Amino acid sequence: MKRRKTRQVKIGSLSIGSKSPVVIQTMTNTPTADQSRTFHQVVELIESGAEAVRLTVNSEAAAVATGKIIGQLRRAGYPQPIIGDFHYNGHVLLSRFPECAQQLDKYRINPGNVGHGSGHQEHFAQIISIAKKWNKPVRIGINGGSLDQDLLAKLIQANSRRKKPLADKEVFYKCAIASALDSAALAQKYGLAANKIIISIKMSNVQDLLAVNAQLAKKCDYPLHLGLTEAGSDIEGIIASTSALAILLQQGIGDTIRISLTPQPGMPRTREVEVCKVLLQSLGMRSYSPTVISCPGCGRTSSDDYQDLAAQIKQHIKNHLKQWKERYIGIEGLKIAVMGCVVNGPGESRHADIGISLAGEKNGKIGAVYQQGHYLVTLKGASIKKDFFKLLESFIRKNYSAR
Amino acid sequence: MKRRKTRQVKIGSLSIGSKSPVVIQTMTNTPTADQSRTFHQVVELIESGAEAVRLTVNSEAAAVATGKIIGQLRRAGYPQPIIGDFHYNGHVLLSRFPECAQQLDKYRINPGNVGHGSGHQEHFAQIISIAKKWNKPVRIGINGGSLDQDLLAKLIQANSRRKKPLADKEVFYKCAIASALDSAALAQKYGLAANKIIISIKMSNVQDLLAVNAQLAKKCDYPLHLGLTEAGSDIEGIIASTSALAILLQQGIGDTIRISLTPQPGMPRTREVEVCKVLLQSLGMRSYSPTVISCPGCGRTSSDDYQDLAAQIKQHIKNHLKQWKERYIGIEGLKIAVMGCVVNGPGESRHADIGISLAGEKNGKIGAVYQQGHYLVTLKGASIKKDFFKLLESFIRKNYSAR
Repeated sequence: MKRRKTRQVKIGSLSIGSKSPVVIQTMTNTPTADQSRTFHQVVELIESGAEAVRLTVNSEAAAVATGKIIGQLRRAGYPQPIIGDFHYNGHVLLSRFPECAQQLDKYRINPGNVGHGSGHQEHFAQIISIAKKWNKPVRIGINGGSLDQDLLAKLIQANSRRKKPLADKEVFYKCAIASALDSAALAQKYGLAANKIIISIKMSNVQDLLAVNAQLAKKCDYPLHLGLTEAGSDIEGIIASTSALAILLQQGIGDTIRISLTPQPGMPRTREVEVCKVLLQSLGMRSYSPTVISCPGCGRTSSDDYQDLAAQIKQHIKNHLKQWKERYIGIEGLKIAVMGCVVNGPGESRHADIGISLAGEKNGKIGAVYQQGHYLVTLKGASIKKDFFKLLESFIRKNYSAR
Repeated sequence: MKRRKTRQVKIGSLSIGSKSPVVIQTMTNTPTADQSRTFHQVVELIESGAEAVRLTVNSEAAAVATGKIIGQLRRAGYPQPIIGDFHYNGHVLLSRFPECAQQLDKYRINPGNVGHGSGHQEHFAQIISIAKKWNKPVRIGINGGSLDQDLLAKLIQANSRRKKPLADKEVFYKCAIASALDSAALAQKYGLAANKIIISIKMSNVQDLLAVNAQLAKKCDYPLHLGLTEAGSDIEGIIASTSALAILLQQGIGDTIRISLTPQPGMPRTREVEVCKVLLQSLGMRSYSPTVISCPGCGRTSSDDYQDLAAQIKQHIKNHLKQWKERYIGIEGLKIAVMGCVVNGPGESRHADIGISLAGEKNGKIGAVYQQGHYLVTLKGASIKKDFFKLLESFIRKNYSAR
C-alpha cells in the first residue's frame, strides 16, 4: 500500500503527513466549560490511544476552560496535541481569549460556519491572522451537513446554466471541494504556510465520502483528515466507518483518521479510539496489540472450549499489554492462533507465532501446539488452557528482547 | 461501483454472479448430526437474512441428518439453498448417502483436504461425478490454513530453482490460486459445466486476502465467494472482515460473502448475518432497513436526549421492520436523521427523508423537524420524542405505497 504523497504538518509535537504513520484522533463529548470532566475525558482518550484530541470551543466559558485544561494536561505529563473546534464565533473567541489561542495546537475551521456574505471573508481572515500570530496549523474541515450555503447557491445556479447540467451529487461534491481548496488558498494568501494546513471533507454516506475524497486527493497535497460523519451508533457506525476508511486508506488516501460513533448506553467514549486502532492494525498500517486468530466454529467444533480459550487469551493480552509493552520490544506484532478443529487448525497455527489447534469434537481434551511454524507438543486433559498459557508466557520471554 | 463480470451460477433457487446482487451466506455451528438444533439454527439464520446456509457434513450421522434437515426446511416453507461442507471424507459420504447428495444445493470442496497423492485426484473425481449426477454446483474453497500441501511443496521447490526466487508470500498466493484454478479446470475436464463452479480463497490476514483475490479475479470469470477466515471475535473480527470485504467489493470483486466471527458469550450466531447486511447496505449495494444518521455528540450536546432518541428510533425500526416491509414498498430505503445540535443538524436533517435537529445545550427542549429537504415544524417541551414518532409514522404512511 503506497501512501499518497502529502506535506508534513506539525501539530504541536505530532507530525501529520505521508512520511508519518496514519494518526488517530478523536473528540470529547463533555461540555468543554466543565474543566474537570473534560480534562478527565481527554486523559482517558489519550490513555486509550488517541494521538490528538479535539474539543469544541463554543462559548467564552469553554474558551477559558480550554486554556486551563491544556495547562493541566501538560503539567500532568501529557504532550498530545489538543485541537479547538470552532463554529460561528471562532474569530471572536480566539481574539478575546489569547491564552486559549496560544495553548491550542490546531484550530479547526468549518468554512460553512464562519459567517455569511462579507462577514465570511472577514472572520476567516481574522482566524488565520491569529493562527499566524501563534504559529498554529489549521484544519479546513468541510462537512456535508454544513456546506457553505452562499457557495452552494452560486454553484447550483452556475450548473443550471450549463448545457448539460451535472447531477445534484456532483454539484454537492464540487461545492465541498471548492469550499476546502478556496479556503486553503485564501489562508495561504493571508500568509499561512502551506504546511500549516490540513483538509477534511466529511459526509455521512459512504459512497459520497469515497467519491469526494478521491477527487480531493488528486487536487492538492495537503494532508487529509478522514472521517465518515454522523455514522450512527454501535455496529452500524463501526461498519460504515470501517468500510469507508478502509477503502480510502487502502488507496493511500488519509493521513489522520477519526471515527465518529453516537455513544450507546454503557459504551465509553474511548470506543471510537479502539475502533481506529483495530482498523489500522487490520490493514497492517499500525501495530498496537498481539493478534488472536480464531475460527468461527462450525458443526465440527461441538465443545465451546476453543471459544473460551480465545476469549481468555484476549483478556490475558488486555490485562498484560501495558506491562508487556514496557518490557518487550515488538510484542504488539505477536500472532496467536486458537483454532477449533483440524481442518484449518494446524495450518493457521503454523502461520502464527504460537498456536493451538484443538481437536474438533474432542477439543476439550486434546490440542496440538505449534511454534514458529513447527509442531511443539500436544497438550491433553483438564490443564490444556493453563499449560498453553505457560507456553505462551515462555514463548514471549524467549522471543522478545527486553527494552 | 462496477461489478467484475462473472458467470451466473444457480444454487438451488438462488442465482450467484455479477447479474445478481451480492448474496449473503453463513454457516451453522451446531453439530449437524443434531437434527433439531441444526434445523432451528438454520431457520434463525435464514430469518435474520442469510440467503444460503452451509453446514458441515463430517460424519455418517451428519450426512443422514443433512437430508432430514433439508426435507424439514422445505416442508416448513424455506426454499433457501443449503450447502454441504466437506473435508477428507466428502467422496465417501456423498457416495454412501445419496439422499444427502441429492438434497444439498451445493457441495463445498476444499482441495487441500480431498486426499494426498493419487487419492487426491480419485476422490476429487468422485465428488465431481456425484455433482454431475445430481446436477449440483460446487464451490472450490481454498483456505490459507489448509493449502494443498503436495502442490505447495512442488511450488516451493520450483521457486527455489528460480534465478530470482519470489517472496514466500507470493509462492503462497500462487499456490492458493493454482489450487483453485487447477481444481476448477479438472472439474470441467470431468464434465462439470463452468456455470456450476464458484471459487473462494480465504486467508486470515487482510492484505493477503486482498492480494490473492485481486490476482484471482483477473484470471477467471467464476463467481467469487469472499470471506476473511479466522477473523477472530467481536469487534476485531467485524472490523477486519469489513475492511477486507469493503475494499474488494468496492473494486467490484465478490459475488457472495460470508463473515466469520468467533462467537462470544451471549452473541447469537445471527451476528454474522447482521454484519453482512450492514456492510452491504453501507456500501449502497443492498438495502435492508431504514438508516439512522446520528451525530457522535461533542461538547455542544450536553444533554443525552439525542442519543436516547436515536436509540429509541433504532429500536422502533427493529420492532416494526417486518410489518413495515409487508406493508410498504421501499421502506428499507428510508433515511432518518437524529442530530444533536445546529452545527450539522439542519443540513443532515434536510438530506434525510425526515430528520430532527435538536438544539445543542437545550436539546431536551427544542428540535426542528425537516421533511424531504424542507423545514416542517419545531417541536418543543416534554413531548418532543412522542411528537417526532407521530410525524415519522405519518411520513411513512404518506410516502410509501402499500403493497
